[in-house]
Amino acid sequence: MKALEWMGDSLKILDQTRLPIEIKYRLATNYEEVAEAIEKMEVRGAPAIGAAAAYGYALGAIKYDGELANLKEHMEKVQKRLAETRPTAVNLFWALRRMEDRMRELHDVTDFGKIKQVLISEADQIAEDDRQVNYLIGEEGNSIIPEEANILTHCNAGALATVEYGTALGVIRAAHRSNKKINVYAGETRPFLQGARLTALELMKDEIPVTLIADNMAGFLMQQGKVDLVLVGADRIAANGDTANKIGTYSLAILAQAHEIPFYVAAPTSTIDLKVASGQEIPIEERDAQEIREVFGVQVAPADVDVYNPAFDVTPSKLITGIITEKGIVTPPYSVNLLKMMVRT
Amino acid sequence: MKALEWMGDSLKILDQTRLPIEIKYRLATNYEEVAEAIEKMEVRGAPAIGAAAAYGYALGAIKYDGELANLKEHMEKVQKRLAETRPTAVNLFWALRRMEDRMRELHDVTDFGKIKQVLISEADQIAEDDRQVNYLIGEEGNSIIPEEANILTHCNAGALATVEYGTALGVIRAAHRSNKKINVYAGETRPFLQGARLTALELMKDEIPVTLIADNMAGFLMQQGKVDLVLVGADRIAANGDTANKIGTYSLAILAQAHEIPFYVAAPTSTIDLKVASGQEIPIEERDAQEIREVFGVQVAPADVDVYNPAFDVTPSKLITGIITEKGIVTPPYSVNLLKMMVRT
Repeated sequence: MKALEWMGDSLKILDQTRLPIEIKYRLATNYEEVAEAIEKMEVRGAPAIGAAAAYGYALGAIKYDGELANLKEHMEKVQKRLAETRPTAVNLFWALRRMEDRMRELHDVTDFGKIKQVLISEADQIAEDDRQVNYLIGEEGNSIIPEEANILTHCNAGALATVEYGTALGVIRAAHRSNKKINVYAGETRPFLQGARLTALELMKDEIPVTLIADNMAGFLMQQGKVDLVLVGADRIAANGDTANKIGTYSLAILAQAHEIPFYVAAPTSTIDLKVASGQEIPIEERDAQEIREVFGVQVAPADVDVYNPAFDVTPSKLITGIITEKGIVTPPYSVNLLKMMVRT
Repeated sequence: MKALEWMGDSLKILDQTRLPIEIKYRLATNYEEVAEAIEKMEVRGAPAIGAAAAYGYALGAIKYDGELANLKEHMEKVQKRLAETRPTAVNLFWALRRMEDRMRELHDVTDFGKIKQVLISEADQIAEDDRQVNYLIGEEGNSIIPEEANILTHCNAGALATVEYGTALGVIRAAHRSNKKINVYAGETRPFLQGARLTALELMKDEIPVTLIADNMAGFLMQQGKVDLVLVGADRIAANGDTANKIGTYSLAILAQAHEIPFYVAAPTSTIDLKVASGQEIPIEERDAQEIREVFGVQVAPADVDVYNPAFDVTPSKLITGIITEKGIVTPPYSVNLLKMMVRT
């Protein structure tokens, strides 16, 4: 079960909105369908969105039937459409920038077949990079996991949020594979229930012990000493280490601090946005009120009740014990150490 | 829309499990049906459970068709059945004790009609007391509500959790009636969604501005300065002020402390259990895994995923700014001041 699969001239997207109840796929044959799948969260998770957008960009070119002279203009439209789908996760913009850079390098190529081939190949490379990066994050992160650990995670930072293996769940997989005794608590992650639907599913398939909780139970678990470590993914990391991630992450970080529990973020370096000085500059997406008023299309609140539905929050870096990347684990002071790592690259 | 209504020889119970989608009633004609309604959370909220149990006890007597000589034994069975329905809220045991005390006083009465009349009258008095107590809590609590306030509440401590008016929502109602500018954030309160289903409904009916959030959004709201005050109900308050309330309350108290936001509990003195020294001695009910795996009967997680589903948690008294009762607002040191208030009574 993969979030994405490139089929040569279309992108097969696993529709995650109905998992684990229904396993449905969308065969996106043009860039608009990819944009729609991202907007509707059929594909979600920062790294997976990045790879999907890259293939969407490639589709924008390979399905283009206009004049080659107008391709550049067309691709700007494609880029714009894909970039407007979701505002918070920076991997989307990072992947589109990689595609645009490649496109720019092709400015004097007149062989349309060659252009298409280069763009598909770049999207493939983005996907392949993400695959490798996640295994490296797993290895790096495993170094901070004790031999026995109760790990609380939030949302889904797993194989379904990436091209393969996962970030936070990649670390958990690596720890489990190295025979550590791992027990995971998965917060269900309202409103979209990625924890209940996706993280529980992934871990059960891998036979990693997982216990599902409602998000509001995290504090009580910690109070009872049942959590050794909090481990989450990220959608954008600012230059000072402030981290945007799924709504609820900030509350977990405060709770972890109050209980003196380590709080780790696992994310590829493509999630780090040095152009953003602090978390205050990260745009936070607000989603439709119906996501709160309904669960799986079933009404659970007065139909016209006012709703506040931010999809992400920002955890200040002072609450973060370490950021696990494919290039190593970054610790405070983040402003210095994130820059060092990114420049070294 | 009342949680309970005594019909002379049966108890009309509003089935809160399907609100606000369906308005259904159960006409409980015997004590077993009352016990079932409490177990299934058709009637819920500590004070409402207490009043329901009192009427259940009365029903145990008035529907009794055995020998008068065996009534005492029968009533012990009735008491036991009602007492085993839910373990955490102490109002249940408090109300049953009031009924048992009355029953004991009737030990030499041979007029069965008289016995029935006394028991019904005591249950009526418990209900009437709760009604009055909630208005007093509202008045007392209003004194700590600023002229303009954004109040975060959790679960439903409203009219539907009591006989009338509510505890935490009683305070909010009193503030609103005295023309204060009140805006309420209601946490949806997974898994049972009392916030989404009941609190939102109650406040909208009273035209008190309410915004629904997922429980995991509370920290982010506070970080943005959108919460002036947290105000919740209680299911049992220990002699040292530790307070058991709906799961998620403890997380809110930690978050409030981290953001220097006052955290108040509103509850009748019948919720105070001086026999329990601290929160550690309060039994915490764990409920069925299906409440987490499903929402309104709709599956939202792998069918066989392990679940942890505690229905309550305990907030240590050091996190509580004040406890609002019908006899005044108790502040630290709680061990001294709760005892003082209860003894004064």
